[in-house]
Amino acid sequence: MSKQNPQLDTQGNLKHFLTIEGLSRDLLTEILDQAEGFLGVAQQAVKKVPLCRGKVVANLFFETSTRTRTTFELAAKRLSADVLNLNISTSATAKGETLLDTLRNLEAMHVDMFVVRHATSGAAHFIAAHAHPHVSVINAGDGRHAHPTQAMLDMFTIRRHKQDLSRLRVAIVGDIMHSRVARSQILALKTLGVPEVRVIAPGTLMPNSIEESFGVRAYHDLREGVRDVDVVIMLRIQRERMNSALLPSEHEYFQLFGLTEERLSTAQPDALVMHPGPINRGVEMDSQVADGPRSVILEQVSNGIAVRMAVMSMCIGTQNLKIQPAGDADG
Amino acid sequence: MSKQNPQLDTQGNLKHFLTIEGLSRDLLTEILDQAEGFLGVAQQAVKKVPLCRGKVVANLFFETSTRTRTTFELAAKRLSADVLNLNISTSATAKGETLLDTLRNLEAMHVDMFVVRHATSGAAHFIAAHAHPHVSVINAGDGRHAHPTQAMLDMFTIRRHKQDLSRLRVAIVGDIMHSRVARSQILALKTLGVPEVRVIAPGTLMPNSIEESFGVRAYHDLREGVRDVDVVIMLRIQRERMNSALLPSEHEYFQLFGLTEERLSTAQPDALVMHPGPINRGVEMDSQVADGPRSVILEQVSNGIAVRMAVMSMCIGTQNLKIQPAGDADG
Amino acid sequence: MSKQNPQLDTQGNLKHFLTIEGLSRDLLTEILDQAEGFLGVAQQAVKKVPLCRGKVVANLFFETSTRTRTTFELAAKRLSADVLNLNISTSATAKGETLLDTLRNLEAMHVDMFVVRHATSGAAHFIAAHAHPHVSVINAGDGRHAHPTQAMLDMFTIRRHKQDLSRLRVAIVGDIMHSRVARSQILALKTLGVPEVRVIAPGTLMPNSIEESFGVRAYHDLREGVRDVDVVIMLRIQRERMNSALLPSEHEYFQLFGLTEERLSTAQPDALVMHPGPINRGVEMDSQVADGPRSVILEQVSNGIAVRMAVMSMCIGTQNLKIQPAGDADG
Repeated sequence: MSKQNPQLDTQGNLKHFLTIEGLSRDLLTEILDQAEGFLGVAQQAVKKVPLCRGKVVANLFFETSTRTRTTFELAAKRLSADVLNLNISTSATAKGETLLDTLRNLEAMHVDMFVVRHATSGAAHFIAAHAHPHVSVINAGDGRHAHPTQAMLDMFTIRRHKQDLSRLRVAIVGDIMHSRVARSQILALKTLGVPEVRVIAPGTLMPNSIEESFGVRAYHDLREGVRDVDVVIMLRIQRERMNSALLPSEHEYFQLFGLTEERLSTAQPDALVMHPGPINRGVEMDSQVADGPRSVILEQVSNGIAVRMAVMSMCIGTQNLKIQPAGDADG
Repeated sequence: MSKQNPQLDTQGNLKHFLTIEGLSRDLLTEILDQAEGFLGVAQQAVKKVPLCRGKVVANLFFETSTRTRTTFELAAKRLSADVLNLNISTSATAKGETLLDTLRNLEAMHVDMFVVRHATSGAAHFIAAHAHPHVSVINAGDGRHAHPTQAMLDMFTIRRHKQDLSRLRVAIVGDIMHSRVARSQILALKTLGVPEVRVIAPGTLMPNSIEESFGVRAYHDLREGVRDVDVVIMLRIQRERMNSALLPSEHEYFQLFGLTEERLSTAQPDALVMHPGPINRGVEMDSQVADGPRSVILEQVSNGIAVRMAVMSMCIGTQNLKIQPAGDADG
Repeated sequence: MSKQNPQLDTQGNLKHFLTIEGLSRDLLTEILDQAEGFLGVAQQAVKKVPLCRGKVVANLFFETSTRTRTTFELAAKRLSADVLNLNISTSATAKGETLLDTLRNLEAMHVDMFVVRHATSGAAHFIAAHAHPHVSVINAGDGRHAHPTQAMLDMFTIRRHKQDLSRLRVAIVGDIMHSRVARSQILALKTLGVPEVRVIAPGTLMPNSIEESFGVRAYHDLREGVRDVDVVIMLRIQRERMNSALLPSEHEYFQLFGLTEERLSTAQPDALVMHPGPINRGVEMDSQVADGPRSVILEQVSNGIAVRMAVMSMCIGTQNLKIQPAGDADG
């Protein structure tokens, strides 16, 4: 990545939201602060603010995800934007050239923002790099690379419960190797000043040099890893990895890395339990934990809409700063 | 069903709309009266009222139905609500546990109303029983159990043509055994004081003790059954039941139970012909009847939007009575 | 076609938009003039005008087309209409009778406008002929017959660059035989007074008596055909026709009829290159031409929204002239 962060305009405002990497603590804090303001919108009788009225947000989901797409759709609608849901088969865009043609056509229709999910790492960066200056791109998950709005809604949820991030111990448990969520969470936690981040995984799902690369501590034992932590973030296990060489059966995984009340007992008494959803009950955790008093899993979902409203309105706001007077020539 | 009707709040206002069972004549009449008011909205140049602005209605259709989903979507949009259409494969929710997780997640997104269609009887009740107090549930058809908005739009259509319900004879013709529509219609007709309700079906499609259970008169002969009636409601035949042990061929069914002008001649001269749609022409009735002067089938469709607007706005209105001041803690 | 054009009301206003055939130069010019006004809407901070607020537009796409459907959806939303996207399998409507029942039901739901795409020539006319007087129909492509909004956006794009249409030479290149786009373009060019229209195609894809029927000049050689033209319109090649008896391989087609900078060199120096999209790069043209300075392909996409807004609002405006006072009886 070059010195000039491709997510920022020349004044340092957020134009795209592609990854946590390269963003300052101040900017992440601004996102969290803006999201606080949007949390109240869901409590209003009329759950709408007119910040993005007349703007068009296109959901470009090359991988299907009803949940993430729905929260982006609701966030956009609460900002009064119009939403286009485009079903794009990956086959139709096997060639990068065709992906660009799709992009150019949507730009020509005056779409203002693309929310992109793609199985290939770097897809959102590629689209942002080739997008027209009037367009913003939000990464809703690209391959194993990043899922920055998920990380920010997690940070938001932690901050609401644990005011001072500079004293926290946070553990992330599961398939660290393949998780774009974990990668974005670690970067966000470190940027926001969390002093101790742990990752807990079976050897087959732990990247080799993660301690050096990311400044975290690696554990292969769940009990040991959650000792004294303030937050436990469980990752979702992709069932398609089960029964492969990488993972034993679901049952065996739960025996070693599934969260139970008993295993949680060595964590801080007020430790939060988090999960990006959807949960595989009895695999990542049992229902007692998922539905228990320390679980903030459903709060994460609510917070996700406020955080996405914050990111979307900040990016659109940056666009507005540059808007040309009407009559401007346009392709 | 316990004494406290699960559809009503403690003040007796409609909170969910799951079944006709247990609702009073006054409440059903209130729905019909409210729907009268909404009928005019479709005639306005701007077909909108702001009663549900900023509310989010989620269509949870576990069985596909373009027609019913579309009328609920139009009703919600005419009330100025935002609509989420969720494609939910039944496989993804084979376990009740997962259905609840889906529900909890949508609640966390501050969805205000679920419109539920499901192949399992009781699904809408189950969801209402487990829903957060701020959420309303409308049953858009559950298994063989109930389809109460269909029944109410039929009552509305009858009342518009036959003012005094207390003097009517109404016949329902077709697969009484498997029909959630018939069950809801019978309950609504009886509650609204219709003195004579007849059901007409082949022996294989007639429940055994229906006369005692529902207070109706059973006929196995169409000619005899429609004699002197004021309304004939034809049910839709599910083609997948054809050629099974229960039903002969379509042709043979039509020979015995298909409505023709000739067979209709023993009914009252101004008898209405109704059908919930979509019609199988030449199976349940011939085109002369479907498109004839006594058919009100397309009026039923128009009325369906007004009745659904009434039910939705009444349920949302009940929510508003209870709305917490902004700033209320929220999961 | 009878003397009374089925697209016009008795005062000569546009009620449906089904084909260019039978429309006057004045009416086509009015569409282009109205579209000029809508072009600015895309430049506004709030890309909305309230002309069709509360109206319901149903996209009836019996053939799938994400691009065309999306531009109609955006056009309708910019006019503040509500949009219904209906997925209609052609199998479900194999019988004309059932298509009419679908239509009648949507009319009963008070849909104001149908945007129809269908594989059968004449489908939009059929629907318009059977539609309720309060409904407008727009043809978004029917079989090999017509695609009039595509033709009008092409005319609009040409007029923006070449003010005086009465001096132009325009060439259309590709599968003239099967193209509804070509048919509508030729009619629009002739109606608007373009003196010389050429069609260029392999012998297998050129209709027999096209010169006499349409008043165009036919060429079988690309170089010769584009000599001195002001506009080159490339048609999309349907890949399913490749390797059939009608067409050689893609490679061979490109060798003979693919547009390159070199072949374009005999055209006017400021000749426009157009294509309805999506482009098959390396088949109809190479990327140097597609992305070159004379290409206006992406402008066509932008213009398509303005032109569709013009057509939709003109048709809805004609409806409003006739609107009955509220309380009007209604099926």
